[in-house]
Amino acid sequence: MASLIKEYITRDPWKIIEDQFYPQYNRITESLCSLGNGAMGQRANFEEQYSGDTFQGSYIAGIYFPDKTKVGWWKNGYPKYFAKVLNAPNWIGINLSIDDEPLDLATCEIKQFTRVLNMKEGVLTRSFIAVLPSKKEIQVNTIRFLSITHSEVGAIRYVVKPLNFDGQLTITPYIDGDIENEDSNYRMKFWAALDQSIEGQEGYVTVKTKKLDFHVCVGMQFDILQNGKKLSLNPVPTEKRKYIASTVTVSCKQNQETVIEKYAAIVSSLNHEKPALHVACEKALHAAYQLGFEKLLQEQVAAWDKKWQESDIIIEGDIAAQQGIRFNIFQLNQTYTGEDERLNIGPKGFTGEKYGGSTYWDTEAYCIPFYLSTADEKVARNLLLYRYKQLDRAIENAKKLGFHSGAALYPMVTMNGEECHNEWEITFEEIHRNGAIAYAIFNYTRYTGDQHYLINYGLEVLIGISRFWAQRVNWSIAKNQYVMLGVTGPNEYENNVNNNWYTNTIACWTMEYTIKSLSDIQKSHPETYEQILKQTKLKAGTETEAWQHIIDHMHFPCEDNLKIFLQQEGYMDKEQVLVKDLDPKERPINQKWSWDRILRSCFIKQADVLQGLYFFEDRYDLETLRRNFDFYEPRTVHESSLSPCVHTILATKLGYHDKAYEMYLRTARLDLDDYNNDTCDGCHITSMAGTWMAVVQGFGGMRVKNDCLHFNPCIPKQWKQFSFKVMFRNHLLQITATNEMVKIENQSKESITLILFDHEYTIPARQSIQAKIE
Amino acid sequence: MASLIKEYITRDPWKIIEDQFYPQYNRITESLCSLGNGAMGQRANFEEQYSGDTFQGSYIAGIYFPDKTKVGWWKNGYPKYFAKVLNAPNWIGINLSIDDEPLDLATCEIKQFTRVLNMKEGVLTRSFIAVLPSKKEIQVNTIRFLSITHSEVGAIRYVVKPLNFDGQLTITPYIDGDIENEDSNYRMKFWAALDQSIEGQEGYVTVKTKKLDFHVCVGMQFDILQNGKKLSLNPVPTEKRKYIASTVTVSCKQNQETVIEKYAAIVSSLNHEKPALHVACEKALHAAYQLGFEKLLQEQVAAWDKKWQESDIIIEGDIAAQQGIRFNIFQLNQTYTGEDERLNIGPKGFTGEKYGGSTYWDTEAYCIPFYLSTADEKVARNLLLYRYKQLDRAIENAKKLGFHSGAALYPMVTMNGEECHNEWEITFEEIHRNGAIAYAIFNYTRYTGDQHYLINYGLEVLIGISRFWAQRVNWSIAKNQYVMLGVTGPNEYENNVNNNWYTNTIACWTMEYTIKSLSDIQKSHPETYEQILKQTKLKAGTETEAWQHIIDHMHFPCEDNLKIFLQQEGYMDKEQVLVKDLDPKERPINQKWSWDRILRSCFIKQADVLQGLYFFEDRYDLETLRRNFDFYEPRTVHESSLSPCVHTILATKLGYHDKAYEMYLRTARLDLDDYNNDTCDGCHITSMAGTWMAVVQGFGGMRVKNDCLHFNPCIPKQWKQFSFKVMFRNHLLQITATNEMVKIENQSKESITLILFDHEYTIPARQSIQAKIE
Repeated sequence: MASLIKEYITRDPWKIIEDQFYPQYNRITESLCSLGNGAMGQRANFEEQYSGDTFQGSYIAGIYFPDKTKVGWWKNGYPKYFAKVLNAPNWIGINLSIDDEPLDLATCEIKQFTRVLNMKEGVLTRSFIAVLPSKKEIQVNTIRFLSITHSEVGAIRYVVKPLNFDGQLTITPYIDGDIENEDSNYRMKFWAALDQSIEGQEGYVTVKTKKLDFHVCVGMQFDILQNGKKLSLNPVPTEKRKYIASTVTVSCKQNQETVIEKYAAIVSSLNHEKPALHVACEKALHAAYQLGFEKLLQEQVAAWDKKWQESDIIIEGDIAAQQGIRFNIFQLNQTYTGEDERLNIGPKGFTGEKYGGSTYWDTEAYCIPFYLSTADEKVARNLLLYRYKQLDRAIENAKKLGFHSGAALYPMVTMNGEECHNEWEITFEEIHRNGAIAYAIFNYTRYTGDQHYLINYGLEVLIGISRFWAQRVNWSIAKNQYVMLGVTGPNEYENNVNNNWYTNTIACWTMEYTIKSLSDIQKSHPETYEQILKQTKLKAGTETEAWQHIIDHMHFPCEDNLKIFLQQEGYMDKEQVLVKDLDPKERPINQKWSWDRILRSCFIKQADVLQGLYFFEDRYDLETLRRNFDFYEPRTVHESSLSPCVHTILATKLGYHDKAYEMYLRTARLDLDDYNNDTCDGCHITSMAGTWMAVVQGFGGMRVKNDCLHFNPCIPKQWKQFSFKVMFRNHLLQITATNEMVKIENQSKESITLILFDHEYTIPARQSIQAKIE
Repeated sequence: MASLIKEYITRDPWKIIEDQFYPQYNRITESLCSLGNGAMGQRANFEEQYSGDTFQGSYIAGIYFPDKTKVGWWKNGYPKYFAKVLNAPNWIGINLSIDDEPLDLATCEIKQFTRVLNMKEGVLTRSFIAVLPSKKEIQVNTIRFLSITHSEVGAIRYVVKPLNFDGQLTITPYIDGDIENEDSNYRMKFWAALDQSIEGQEGYVTVKTKKLDFHVCVGMQFDILQNGKKLSLNPVPTEKRKYIASTVTVSCKQNQETVIEKYAAIVSSLNHEKPALHVACEKALHAAYQLGFEKLLQEQVAAWDKKWQESDIIIEGDIAAQQGIRFNIFQLNQTYTGEDERLNIGPKGFTGEKYGGSTYWDTEAYCIPFYLSTADEKVARNLLLYRYKQLDRAIENAKKLGFHSGAALYPMVTMNGEECHNEWEITFEEIHRNGAIAYAIFNYTRYTGDQHYLINYGLEVLIGISRFWAQRVNWSIAKNQYVMLGVTGPNEYENNVNNNWYTNTIACWTMEYTIKSLSDIQKSHPETYEQILKQTKLKAGTETEAWQHIIDHMHFPCEDNLKIFLQQEGYMDKEQVLVKDLDPKERPINQKWSWDRILRSCFIKQADVLQGLYFFEDRYDLETLRRNFDFYEPRTVHESSLSPCVHTILATKLGYHDKAYEMYLRTARLDLDDYNNDTCDGCHITSMAGTWMAVVQGFGGMRVKNDCLHFNPCIPKQWKQFSFKVMFRNHLLQITATNEMVKIENQSKESITLILFDHEYTIPARQSIQAKIE
C-alpha cells in the first residue's frame, strides 16, 4: 500500500504547497487546496482556461438536487432520491489571451510554478512563469479567498507580467452558470437559466435548480490596474443563457504588471427572498467592491488568526504531523462555522461532490467534540438544532418503514431530514445512527453543562428515538429476551446481522438516558415536563416502563470463554483470521475482495464494539476494554477513515503507545498523502475531526466527568512536544506536553479547577500549572 | 385482494378470448395472447397503427443487450451489466387508411370486437367492425402465427371489408427496426442501423445490437388479394434508417374483401454467418411465400396438435381450471421447444421484457419436470447442456468472488453464463441455485434412466458445484461443525442469513450425489472416470474426503421443541405471527410493507424448508413433513408465483385437500386473472411449469422411484374428472381420474410396469388399467 502514497506536497507547518505543477495530480491538489467559508466552497481550480484534466467545483452550502436514485429493483420504503451536493456557478473564471494566444497551462512550458494553500490566512495563492507556444513568457501571481467575514463574497487578485515582450492582454472575467455535476446519475443538468446581465465591469447570472427551485444569483465586478491605478475600460460584453463575460484588451509593456481584481457575490434563496435576490447580490457585491481587495484580505487574515487562537494544535519535532493536524483543523473550520443551523457537514465538505448528501452520523459521533472544544457553544448547539428541526421528518421517515406513535428514525444521509441514501442495508438497517444523535445531546450537555438545550429541544428528540428503539426490538420466545434483528452496525462489512452489540447497547443507553432526563426535568422544570408530555403524547408511565423492561431484558451477545462482547450473534462462527496474516497484496480488502467475501469474513471495517466501549467507557473496567481491544483490534482493517481515531484513543488509554501512534498516522495525513487513492474526489472532511479527537482525547487524554475536565497527556515518542487548545465553559486552555512535563495554561479571565493525572488543580486566570510525567 | 382480479377473459377450454375491446386492459391482453415458437415471440399488438396505450413487443430468443447496471454504490464482484431481453424489430406492422382516413382503434367506434388466442392451433385471431370518424364502417378479420415448423417465419392474413361504402384502401406493410426497450436503464436505444432495402412487395431491414453486435435481418413479402386473386401492384416504397415500408392503394367495393397476406422472416447472426444473413433471410422468406399462407397454417395446426397429444391436461367440471392449465401448457410449449441448447426460458418468455436475462433457477427447479414428462428427452437434456456449456463461465463467476480450483457458481440470472443480476443479496448469496442445477442432473437421470448425460457432461458440473460448496462453508470453532454464512434462501424475504437449512441441505446432497456418481462411474466407466479426473484436476481422495467430512459435520438448524427444521439460524427469534392474523389490507406485504419490515418479519415469500422437503421427500417420514408443513405453511405468504405449487404437492401428500386446492388456484389462473396486477409486463412463464407440477405430481401423485413411475391420484372435489399425459422412457401414458376411479392408458407400442396406489401393474401396449379410489 505504501507505494500508492503520494508525497508530492511539500511539508510545511502552515502551508499546503505544490512546488511544481503536477498535472497528473491536479484533481488531488484541487481538492487539497480548496477554500471554504462555511457558506460556500471552491476547489483550487485555475482562474484561466485549462484544457488539461481538472475537476471544476464550486459549492454553496444548503443548495442541493434530489437526483433520481439508481437501484436494481426498487422496493417499498426505498428513498426515491439521492441528494446531490450541487456544483454551482463558476465565479472564479478569468480567461486570458496574450496577443490572441490563450494562456492555457496545458499548452505552455511552465516554470517556477507554486500553488499554495496558506492555512494561517485562509488564502490560496499561485505563481508561475508560462512560456507560451509563441515563446512569449509571462509571469502570473494570483491570490484568492472566500471571505470568512462576508460570507457571500469571494475575491481574486490576478497579476500578469510580460517578461520578454510588449503586447496586448485580452482579459475576460466571466461567470458561468451552465454547470454539470460529475456524479449526476442520469447525466442531467441540474441548473436552469433565469436571468443574466452584463454591463461594463459588472455582471450577474441568476439560475435556479430544477425540481426544488433554489435560486442563486452570482455577481461579479472587476478592476484592472496598471502602475497602481485603475484603468478606465470599455469592455465588450458577452451574454448567453446562464453565462456572462466582459472582455477587455489592454496594452502592457515588458516587466509591467497588469493587476485584475475580481470580486464576486454569491447569494441564494436560502438567505434571501427570491424577488430580492438580485438586489441582495448587488448589495453584497458593491459592499465588497467598496471595501476593496486589500481591506477584505486584511479582515480575512484577522478572522483566521482568531480561529487559530481557539483551535490550533502545535506539534514539535514532526513537521508532517504538524502539517497534517493543521490541515485537518483548517478544513473543519472552513467547512462549518456554526452560523446557520440549517447547515451541516458533508463528508467531502466543499471539496467535492462524492457521497452527495450533507449529513451523516459523522457529525454527531466525530464532529461535535471538535466544535465543542474549539468554538463557541452555539456552533455545536446549531448542529444539534439541525436535528431537532428535522424531528418531524425523522418521524415521517420511521412511519414509511412501518413505525408509529412518534417513533423517530433519523436518516443515514440527508439534506433536509428526508432519507436519501440508496442501499437498504444502510438506510433501513444502519440504525445505530439514531443512537449517535441521542449521544450527541448527552455529549453536548456533559461538556457545556448547559441543560437548556436538553430541556427545550433535546428531550423531544430523545423521546422520538427511544420510541423507535422500543418498537424496533422484539421479544424472542427462544431467548426469553428482547432482540434487535436485521441491523448493520458501524462495521459496514457486515449487513443485516442480529443483535449487534453496539446497536443494542446504544439503544438501551438512549432509553435509559431518556428516562433519566424525563425524571430530572420532571423535578427541575415540572411545567416544561408537562408541556413535553402533551406535545409528544408520551404516556409517561406506560412507555417508560416498557423501555425499562427492554433495558432490563435486552440480549447482549457475549463470548463466555474470551469474556468479550460479541460484535453480533454468530460472529464466532466466522473463520477467525487476523489482519496481520492477510497477504498485503490483498489490502485494502474493499478494493481487492468481492463484497461477498468481505461480508463473510471476520474483518472489521471500523470500530464497532470498540466504538461502544469508547462512548460508554465509564461503564467498563480497563480489563474489559483490554480483552475486547485485544480481540477486535487485530481483526480491524480500518478501511473507514473514521476508524483509527477511536483505536488511537483506546490504545492510549490501555498504554499501547505504538499501536496508538500507528493508528494516528493513518488519519492524520490521509488526504495529504492520498492514502486511499481518492482525494481527487475531495477531502475526507468529517474524519478530520477524528484526527483532532485522537490528539486531544487520545494523546491529551481529555475527558469531561462530573462537570470537570480531566487530562492524562502522553506524548508519542516521535514528537518533542505537542500542545492543543480547548475551550471549556468559557475557559480557553492551552495544554502542552513534552516527554517530561505537562503544562496547562488558563488563558481566560477566570480560574478553573481541573484534574490532571488524577490530581485536582485550580488554575487562576491567566496562569498555568505544570506537572511532571512519571 | 379479490377486487384486483380481472375477469374479463371469457372462459373457454381452448381459447383465450377478449370478447370486446378493453383498452384499459390492452397491455394485459397483449401479454396473454402473445405468440411464440421457441425461437421468437410476439405480443398480441395490433398490426395497424394504434394511438392508445400499448406495449409493443417482439423478441428473438438469445438476442440480448448488456445494459449498464443501476446500483447505488458499485462494489467489487458486482456484475457490470444487467442483460436485457431485446425488444426486436416490428415485423407485424400493416398500416391502413380508408380514403386517407387512418384506421386507429383508439379513434373509432368499435363493434363486435374479439381478440382470440387459439391455443389448440397456435394462432391469434382478431375481428371487429370499426366505425371511422367519417362514419365509414369496415370489418376486419386477422389471423397471425409464428410458425412452429419454420422457426424463422411469421405470417399474417389481414382481411378488410367496407360495410357501407366504396372507396380507396391505402395499405402499408412495414418493418420497423427503430425499437426501444421500455426497461432500458438509461433510455438508450439498443439497435443500430446496418442496411435496409425495399423493392416492390419485398423488403428487408438489417440492424445490429450495440455492444455485442448481434445482427438481425427481418424481411417481409406480401400479397393483396381480391376475389381470391392476387392483385398486380405498383407499390410506393419508403426507406428510412432501420425502417422500410411499401404503400399500395387499392379500390374496394362495399362488402368486398381485400386480403393482405404478409410473410416475414426473422433471422439472426445466432444462426447464420453475418455476411450470409441477408441471403438466409431471403431464403426463409421465399420458402414461406412459396408455401403460401394456407399451407403454413395447416402445418401450424398439425404441429400444435402433436404437442397437445403429448402434453394435454383435461379437467372436467371446471372450465376456469381447464382454461388455466391449458394456457400454462400452451405458453410453456411456445416458449421453449428444446431445439437449441443455447436457449433457455426467461421468466416472462416472449411476452415481455421484465426481469431481463433469460435463465433463473426456475428452469431447473420448475421447468425441467414439465419438459421431461411432455416432450422428447432431448428437450430437457438441452436445458441441461445449456448449463454444461456455461461451466467455464460459472467457474469464472466463482473466481470473481474469490473461489478457486474449479469451484463453479452458476449465476442467478444469465444470458450467456455470466452473472447479470444487480443485487448483492441475490447475486452473491442466493447460491442455492447452484444446488438446483445439480438436482436437475439427478432429476433428469432418475426420470430418463439415461446415464449418458451424467457420465459425459453432468459429472463435471457436479464436481464444479461440489467444490463451490466445499469452499463456501467454513468450520465454526463455536459450533464444532461446518456452517454456511451469509446466504439468501429461496425465501427472498430474508437476506444474508446464516445456515439456511435448505441451502445446507442441497449443498450436502450435491456433494453426496457427486461422490456417489464418481464412485459409480469409476466402476462402470473407468476410462471416462480417469478422463474426468484429469480434465477437472480432481484429487479424488483428498477432495471427496473433504466433502464427506463436510457432509458428516454440517450444521442443520433445528427447533427441538417443535421438532422442525429451522429455515435459518435465529428464525425463532422473530416475532411469530401467522398469515391468517395479518390484516388483509396489508397484503400482499411486498406492496404494502417496507422492505425493512418484510425482512424482519417471520413471513415467508415462497417454499424454503418445504422446497427441501419436496426435493428430498424420500429422506423424511410423513410426520416430519407434517410438522414442518404445519409450521411453515401458516407463515407463508406465497408472494412468489413459484411457491403455491410446491405447497399443493406437499398438501396433497399430507391429505390436506382443501389447502392443496386453494394453493392450486393461486397459480393456475395467475396471469389470466392478473392476480398480481403485473400481467401487463408479461406472463409468468416459468411458474406455469409449477402449475403443471401441481396437477401431475400433486393431484396425480406422480413420482419416479427405482426406475418406475408411481401414481397416487386424488381429484379435487371441485372437479369431475381430470386427465394428463406423460411421456416416460418412450411410453406415452394418459392418466385419468374421477372421484371413483383411476384409469391409466398406455398409448405406446410397448408394455410398461408402474405402481398405482402402491400396487404394481403391467400395462400392455395400447391397453389400459383401472383402479377404484377407496
